Amino acid sequence: MIVVLKSNATEEQIKYIVEKTKKLGLKANISRGVERTVIGLIGPEDVLRVTPLEIFPGVEKVIPVLAPYRLVSREFKKENSVIKIGRDVRFGSKKIFVMAGPCSVESAKGMRSIARKVKKAGATVLRGGAFKPRTSPYDFQGLGEEGLKYLSEAGKEFGLATITEVMDTRDLDLICKYADILQIGARNMQNSSLLKEIGKTKKPVMLKRGISATVKEWLMSAEYILSNGNFDVLLCERGIRTFETATRNTFDVNAVALVKQLSHLPVIADPSHGTGVRKLVGNVAKASVAAGCDGLMIEVHDSPEEAFSDGQQSLVPKQFDSLMKDLKKIALAVSREI
Amino acid sequence: MIVVLKSNATEEQIKYIVEKTKKLGLKANISRGVERTVIGLIGPEDVLRVTPLEIFPGVEKVIPVLAPYRLVSREFKKENSVIKIGRDVRFGSKKIFVMAGPCSVESAKGMRSIARKVKKAGATVLRGGAFKPRTSPYDFQGLGEEGLKYLSEAGKEFGLATITEVMDTRDLDLICKYADILQIGARNMQNSSLLKEIGKTKKPVMLKRGISATVKEWLMSAEYILSNGNFDVLLCERGIRTFETATRNTFDVNAVALVKQLSHLPVIADPSHGTGVRKLVGNVAKASVAAGCDGLMIEVHDSPEEAFSDGQQSLVPKQFDSLMKDLKKIALAVSREI
Amino acid sequence: MIVVLKSNATEEQIKYIVEKTKKLGLKANISRGVERTVIGLIGPEDVLRVTPLEIFPGVEKVIPVLAPYRLVSREFKKENSVIKIGRDVRFGSKKIFVMAGPCSVESAKGMRSIARKVKKAGATVLRGGAFKPRTSPYDFQGLGEEGLKYLSEAGKEFGLATITEVMDTRDLDLICKYADILQIGARNMQNSSLLKEIGKTKKPVMLKRGISATVKEWLMSAEYILSNGNFDVLLCERGIRTFETATRNTFDVNAVALVKQLSHLPVIADPSHGTGVRKLVGNVAKASVAAGCDGLMIEVHDSPEEAFSDGQQSLVPKQFDSLMKDLKKIALAVSREI
Amino acid sequence: MIVVLKSNATEEQIKYIVEKTKKLGLKANISRGVERTVIGLIGPEDVLRVTPLEIFPGVEKVIPVLAPYRLVSREFKKENSVIKIGRDVRFGSKKIFVMAGPCSVESAKGMRSIARKVKKAGATVLRGGAFKPRTSPYDFQGLGEEGLKYLSEAGKEFGLATITEVMDTRDLDLICKYADILQIGARNMQNSSLLKEIGKTKKPVMLKRGISATVKEWLMSAEYILSNGNFDVLLCERGIRTFETATRNTFDVNAVALVKQLSHLPVIADPSHGTGVRKLVGNVAKASVAAGCDGLMIEVHDSPEEAFSDGQQSLVPKQFDSLMKDLKKIALAVSREI
Repeated sequence: MIVVLKSNATEEQIKYIVEKTKKLGLKANISRGVERTVIGLIGPEDVLRVTPLEIFPGVEKVIPVLAPYRLVSREFKKENSVIKIGRDVRFGSKKIFVMAGPCSVESAKGMRSIARKVKKAGATVLRGGAFKPRTSPYDFQGLGEEGLKYLSEAGKEFGLATITEVMDTRDLDLICKYADILQIGARNMQNSSLLKEIGKTKKPVMLKRGISATVKEWLMSAEYILSNGNFDVLLCERGIRTFETATRNTFDVNAVALVKQLSHLPVIADPSHGTGVRKLVGNVAKASVAAGCDGLMIEVHDSPEEAFSDGQQSLVPKQFDSLMKDLKKIALAVSREI
Repeated sequence: MIVVLKSNATEEQIKYIVEKTKKLGLKANISRGVERTVIGLIGPEDVLRVTPLEIFPGVEKVIPVLAPYRLVSREFKKENSVIKIGRDVRFGSKKIFVMAGPCSVESAKGMRSIARKVKKAGATVLRGGAFKPRTSPYDFQGLGEEGLKYLSEAGKEFGLATITEVMDTRDLDLICKYADILQIGARNMQNSSLLKEIGKTKKPVMLKRGISATVKEWLMSAEYILSNGNFDVLLCERGIRTFETATRNTFDVNAVALVKQLSHLPVIADPSHGTGVRKLVGNVAKASVAAGCDGLMIEVHDSPEEAFSDGQQSLVPKQFDSLMKDLKKIALAVSREI
Repeated sequence: MIVVLKSNATEEQIKYIVEKTKKLGLKANISRGVERTVIGLIGPEDVLRVTPLEIFPGVEKVIPVLAPYRLVSREFKKENSVIKIGRDVRFGSKKIFVMAGPCSVESAKGMRSIARKVKKAGATVLRGGAFKPRTSPYDFQGLGEEGLKYLSEAGKEFGLATITEVMDTRDLDLICKYADILQIGARNMQNSSLLKEIGKTKKPVMLKRGISATVKEWLMSAEYILSNGNFDVLLCERGIRTFETATRNTFDVNAVALVKQLSHLPVIADPSHGTGVRKLVGNVAKASVAAGCDGLMIEVHDSPEEAFSDGQQSLVPKQFDSLMKDLKKIALAVSREI
Repeated sequence: MIVVLKSNATEEQIKYIVEKTKKLGLKANISRGVERTVIGLIGPEDVLRVTPLEIFPGVEKVIPVLAPYRLVSREFKKENSVIKIGRDVRFGSKKIFVMAGPCSVESAKGMRSIARKVKKAGATVLRGGAFKPRTSPYDFQGLGEEGLKYLSEAGKEFGLATITEVMDTRDLDLICKYADILQIGARNMQNSSLLKEIGKTKKPVMLKRGISATVKEWLMSAEYILSNGNFDVLLCERGIRTFETATRNTFDVNAVALVKQLSHLPVIADPSHGTGVRKLVGNVAKASVAAGCDGLMIEVHDSPEEAFSDGQQSLVPKQFDSLMKDLKKIALAVSREI
């Protein structure tokens, strides 16, 4: 923690800060420049973070030095974490794994049909929402447990692991019974009650980045899960909110590359939400693989015109199949495989 | 709903859209311009909203006509809603009510001391967090039920209504026992499970705007609460996230004025979070009153240097007292009172 | 400048940095913490700012300590700068001055009509664009010198100072002949050629904040003008671009208060562009006065339905007159006058 | 143009709008829904765009139907535009061309050294700034004509076309003498004087996207150039400003794919500014090729530690050489070449 003093800070004010911080167990290192005196504080970082030094007399600003996360950082663990799901899926390895399926689980028949097709195209995880977070209370809210069953059955039949979203701590036990991977959606990225509860389970979890979460906040939310004991966390970039309205979100391809450097956790890209526009999904999926992601999540629907949600960004199975072929080439070009 | 067709859309494509939408119970009104054909769809708006017409062949874009919210709108209810709390508090009336107190409840003694001082200065509602949403899992997470008790006792002793945050559906019953107003924090603005459960209670609730929520999304979240039966909703503007980093958030003063026009619900301003900087709180509080807010929420702490959270944006009681005097003058200048 | 080293930085790397920076005339102050070593660099700040220490081996990040601006800062000049225009106008004094007029100069008759009305309502500066920056090449681009004449004549007739926008260094001499205050528009806030040339004139200048400029960048652009010799600079907050689309821009009321603290220069608020919506202009104008602005710029047009530009955010003279009365009350409430 | 009326709009108001717009040469198509009446206006789009229908009595909102640009659109020209520079460079063809060089021209010797190395690695255009737009007036402002000479000489010696930035209409003739491609920087994207003047030249020009420009505004700025007669325009995505501060900008990979669909003009990616972080440049360059860009601009400096500007995001020649090899593989994977 660096404390920058005002140009007119007095010796008394400096002394006050040094004494106050000493009581908190911190060591102060004073550095007097021509225009400014700066105090470096050394000690336990949590104490530092919560002390509002900004309001001490004579202080102009306070600058943190350390990243606030630990367990998720590359410094904590140098090598890539590999998250195992079932016999075959290994997120974080050389192979890139693809999750595909509809936005919402809509029927048993629909799930089976899509499962069969995405499996054939090379997907390894089946997605589908049973509890849906919607902006409007009048929109489809999901099939609940029935949807979980359809998802689970389709996954088992075609040898696909399954992933579905958890929105409420009360649903956690139920969902854990059916799904292989829990998803925390963008709207719940900072739902700390949910993060803590999921941290206490043993289930792999995919944490989506909030639409306006900084990379640092995203990693802090992951830290909630790891610090509660669950290290099987996938980080999913799904686009952020910016001033641009031509696309639903702005896919942050920088973040894909950056998070791989900052953290040992696998990074998943979601070009469906990242663009919100079907005809851009393919190009951004390819870009994500080129940028270094460890997995992809892509919305696929047999008949997007009739989808209960997100139809405008879903691929039809044929498009998905063709995209998978393209992605394999890009993966090879960056010494990976799909 | 307006469907704009591509310049090269065929008659067959137009026919297909008309037929498909007819099946959904919609009436199509075709308007052929020089460069574009446009189809206006008339019918039940929910059907319209969820049908992904964007991906129909020949469609360039789809433009919604109606606001997606109803119960919260001025069209639904022309006059201001007045939310009554206890004998005296009437949010939405000529009088502007001020909520004040510490970010977190820290001790019984501390709550009593602040309660006494803010009451004397003119506040009518006491705030204090017992369950705290924090970015870091290593920061103070709140005193829980113990904190609720301290808050409630201090409120009763000094004749102040109380407000505190709910973060988890599991805590709702407990908090309802202690607090007069429930707060939904910015991080949970789109936690639809929580919105629905609170919608089923009879408790007044203050819904904070998410840091990157549009006004429309904010009103849709309020719609979740109203549509579940609870009409006692206060809308709280507390700053949005922008590119500017000189302040913690950017207080959206436009939204204060705009929401008063779009909705009948009372609007509360939170200049403490809206700026994140103590020395700006006063000016932005004044601006909020001038812009037409119905209430204010201001963080006050006896000793911000030692606050467990948000010390850098808390006023000391003396500053709060002085600010209240200034606010009374502004309120009079806009024909209100405090 | 603070250099934070990587946790695994070697002694050799530290030595290299110390030696390199010594050659640049900087003194290095090494502070060894438990997890990190930090180097404080003391010396001429310009050298510091341009040296890309981020890429030196062993460096994790570099944190600037000083604000990059000088002449515009409160530290350089403690008391408010007062910018004098003509006999009566004194921006930065106790009195708040109001600039009003149409977006574009459209005709001699129109300018005279508006000038008369805004003068009567209490405005002291007449605005009107003769060279218009437009998003589309097909929109009205301004009347050029003819427009300058109309503006100047109307100003003289009714005893109003005049302000108009400069977009091109080649037009500067011409505009200086006609107008009392030069305006640099948001789109040109970082047009350094223009800033430098205007810095060499003696004309008062109003620098609008760019739609995505941080407060720091805005002050740096002002620094361009002051450092070239022209200290008569007004800073105009006119709304920033955010994710919110319900308003044309998001008026940054925080910035009004903040810039008054950081700088000695007068701050002007432009609620017309800051909201982009006529029915919000009044409330945000009031909020700006409450927040501490030294002046206002408000678009007024006799017949907004027929305005060549910005009709949707222009007040009619009657609305402007009524607003001026309200603003006087707010000004009194904050111990100012209009 | 679609005019949505208020739910309580009167017949008189509707009649007024129809008559007013008729006078403007527009045809009104009235569509009466259950909750709203909507008027579709058909006619010359420029008239529509500038008429502020929002403020007509009874109007709730106005929705544009057509994109405001024409000449830059895919509808105007279906096939890709190919911009020829010299004998070999063909932006918009199957081959992807790479521009490389230092941020600023610093010396004749330095330019020659870098030119030789980037040529060898496969670059075809040499970049270097002689007139530099800087945030601070105290930072290096460029060598001016001297810099242009060094750039031009180095380009000729090694068979590289050259590109450099124009910031002021007064410098245009001079720069046209030396450079093969003009660059309009992000800060000047909406400098309409400059856009018009460059539109009157015959020089190829690369238009960088402004840091907060929407795709639509970016295309409108290009429209300024085309509508003045110059069709040789390259569009350069270089990152936008968002709330994220971990990277200097957020590279908008969606925009690369989207603009290729909306426009026939070639799209260039600038991962150096798009990330601002050297260690991310490579991954984002690869992502850009995968997403479909037609060219790349990459900052390369022999000794970034001593660069006059942008050292922290420059690659050293060895890194650039290695990246070029990787890019060739990605290009092949998407059926392109470098």
